Amino acid sequence: MKIGVTFFPTVGLQDKAASQYYDECLALAVLADELGYHHIKTVEHYFFTYGGYSPDPVTFLAAVAARTTRIRIGTSAVIPAFTHPIKLAGKLAMLDNLSHGRLDVAFGRAFLPDEFEAFGVPMDESRERFDEGVEACKALWESENVRFEGRFHSFGPVTLLPRTVQRPHPPVYVTSARSLDSCKAAGSLGHRLQLVPGILSLEQMQEALRVYRAAWADAGRDPSDAEVHLGYPCYIADDAEEAYRIGRYDDERNGAAISAAVSSWGRVSSSSYPGYEKLADTRLRAGFDQKLAKNKILAGTPETVAQQLATVANRFGDNLVVSLNLHSGHLSQQESERTLRLMAEQVVPSLPGARSAV
Amino acid sequence: MKIGVTFFPTVGLQDKAASQYYDECLALAVLADELGYHHIKTVEHYFFTYGGYSPDPVTFLAAVAARTTRIRIGTSAVIPAFTHPIKLAGKLAMLDNLSHGRLDVAFGRAFLPDEFEAFGVPMDESRERFDEGVEACKALWESENVRFEGRFHSFGPVTLLPRTVQRPHPPVYVTSARSLDSCKAAGSLGHRLQLVPGILSLEQMQEALRVYRAAWADAGRDPSDAEVHLGYPCYIADDAEEAYRIGRYDDERNGAAISAAVSSWGRVSSSSYPGYEKLADTRLRAGFDQKLAKNKILAGTPETVAQQLATVANRFGDNLVVSLNLHSGHLSQQESERTLRLMAEQVVPSLPGARSAV
Repeated sequence: MKIGVTFFPTVGLQDKAASQYYDECLALAVLADELGYHHIKTVEHYFFTYGGYSPDPVTFLAAVAARTTRIRIGTSAVIPAFTHPIKLAGKLAMLDNLSHGRLDVAFGRAFLPDEFEAFGVPMDESRERFDEGVEACKALWESENVRFEGRFHSFGPVTLLPRTVQRPHPPVYVTSARSLDSCKAAGSLGHRLQLVPGILSLEQMQEALRVYRAAWADAGRDPSDAEVHLGYPCYIADDAEEAYRIGRYDDERNGAAISAAVSSWGRVSSSSYPGYEKLADTRLRAGFDQKLAKNKILAGTPETVAQQLATVANRFGDNLVVSLNLHSGHLSQQESERTLRLMAEQVVPSLPGARSAV
Repeated sequence: MKIGVTFFPTVGLQDKAASQYYDECLALAVLADELGYHHIKTVEHYFFTYGGYSPDPVTFLAAVAARTTRIRIGTSAVIPAFTHPIKLAGKLAMLDNLSHGRLDVAFGRAFLPDEFEAFGVPMDESRERFDEGVEACKALWESENVRFEGRFHSFGPVTLLPRTVQRPHPPVYVTSARSLDSCKAAGSLGHRLQLVPGILSLEQMQEALRVYRAAWADAGRDPSDAEVHLGYPCYIADDAEEAYRIGRYDDERNGAAISAAVSSWGRVSSSSYPGYEKLADTRLRAGFDQKLAKNKILAGTPETVAQQLATVANRFGDNLVVSLNLHSGHLSQQESERTLRLMAEQVVPSLPGARSAV
């Protein structure tokens, strides 16, 4: 098990200035690099406190690349539906070069109606735009004189500059696939997987992983390359009550940010997003204690969090990369730094076979 | 007169790996920050050695922001025709925050047929897309709940996150306006101007500045804010012959890069780009010595370059910012560093009233 960090801001103007938020995240990224963490990732979202401080993850990650030397750098995710593939492939290739080959690229479909509306993209096209965008980026990275004929974009022959450092291209991840078809497609195409345990039941998680790994193996690929990223909010302190206190505080604010962002699902439905209407129903949302009990949040002392990670490994198997959802912005930099240090210095050394992790 | 640096790569895979090129430019940017230079800028281009290592200037500039503390950071330029305004305004707002309010935004129309073709954008729409894109970005930066109804993009009401540090928005520049109408429009709208003396005659330059400054003043604006950036290739050494030798070497390679990028003007014409067909005719292009004689390249010893800058000031007046076109990638980092140091340490102190410049 490897362990890294995802920054998913849920603060807005009233909470913390973006310049301060970025400064804090950069300082935490430098610390994570020094402590040996596996990766730094960040998201792409717009307009709402839910991720809105990160409309372009590549911009923030280029700053991380400039300040760090060994930690991997990842999108979580970029949205092909909102950016022309030449632009998207180009800036990601720049980031792979700026980081000397440390880039992991996760692509996502997006799921917020207001974002699609603002970009003038019908939600019903999102899967096709996702598939086409990923295919176009991979083609631009892999080959020269690329001629691409898609439904939404056609171009070529062109040769993208710069070429990526990692050949034929940086590792590609598919993020948050809720549908089993998506998991199967990801495995068949040799894409890695990012899942969010917080929004899936244990049974859904295990079924998604089974389908994904079977498709990966059926395509004749080496099972040990089928890396899966799992995202978990994480709060560690020497005193369990202190960890729960900050976790509960943060979780409530994250919940409020999600509620505002998904409220438009109360007036929208899309056959491409079955069941998403329910997102607007806040009564269905679990609280901190319920999520902690279901192992969907990592919180407590170094000892109890180590037990939680052992449970994650038991339930979900090999080749796992745990990404700590850290520093949404509501806690202080010191509180997030404490979690980072305790995880690296006390949790990880106690995990079986995890020495190489953090 | 203030003095800064523009990185305009003209190297490709055969010349220098992009990762090495970025490393060298970042090191030069850190040095420029320490030496007191005014700005670091870079370009947006695709596919060709002519700027192709910089398909997304914001990505590189975010790395510069992370490594520097006081130098201003600028696009030179970004192309609204190739990026959705929500995306463009969002990542520039991130950069303004990452740099703590050090961003200058120059917008350009673009002029390479192959770039327009790849993005599926008709060249004849370029002026309208430029105007609309600049207007949309400014609206997103200035206001909340923006409703925008354009020919190419409509959206809103949306509130962009993050908000820019500089209010109501970062300084806006219009780059390389060849037409007097563009210069007049820039002055009327309160946009600053970026001109490239290398592609205009002395008379054209003076006429452009006259029209721009008159429009600025006619709009009731303070003339001392009408800042104009002028870009000059620059090569300085203690031995003039050495400066000419590296200048000639670099200029020839820059010329070859331009020739490849503009060759499609031999088969294209657009009423929106009158006269551009001639760009494909390499016989019309001046050589290094001719450009040096016409003061379109700064090259020589600290003393002779100081004289050249005095000529620039005499010809083009007040509020000038000279941007040194440095490190296209064909020279060594040491050669570019020498130019930077000699300019800051020997040229600038000898300029009248230029002490605050570099």
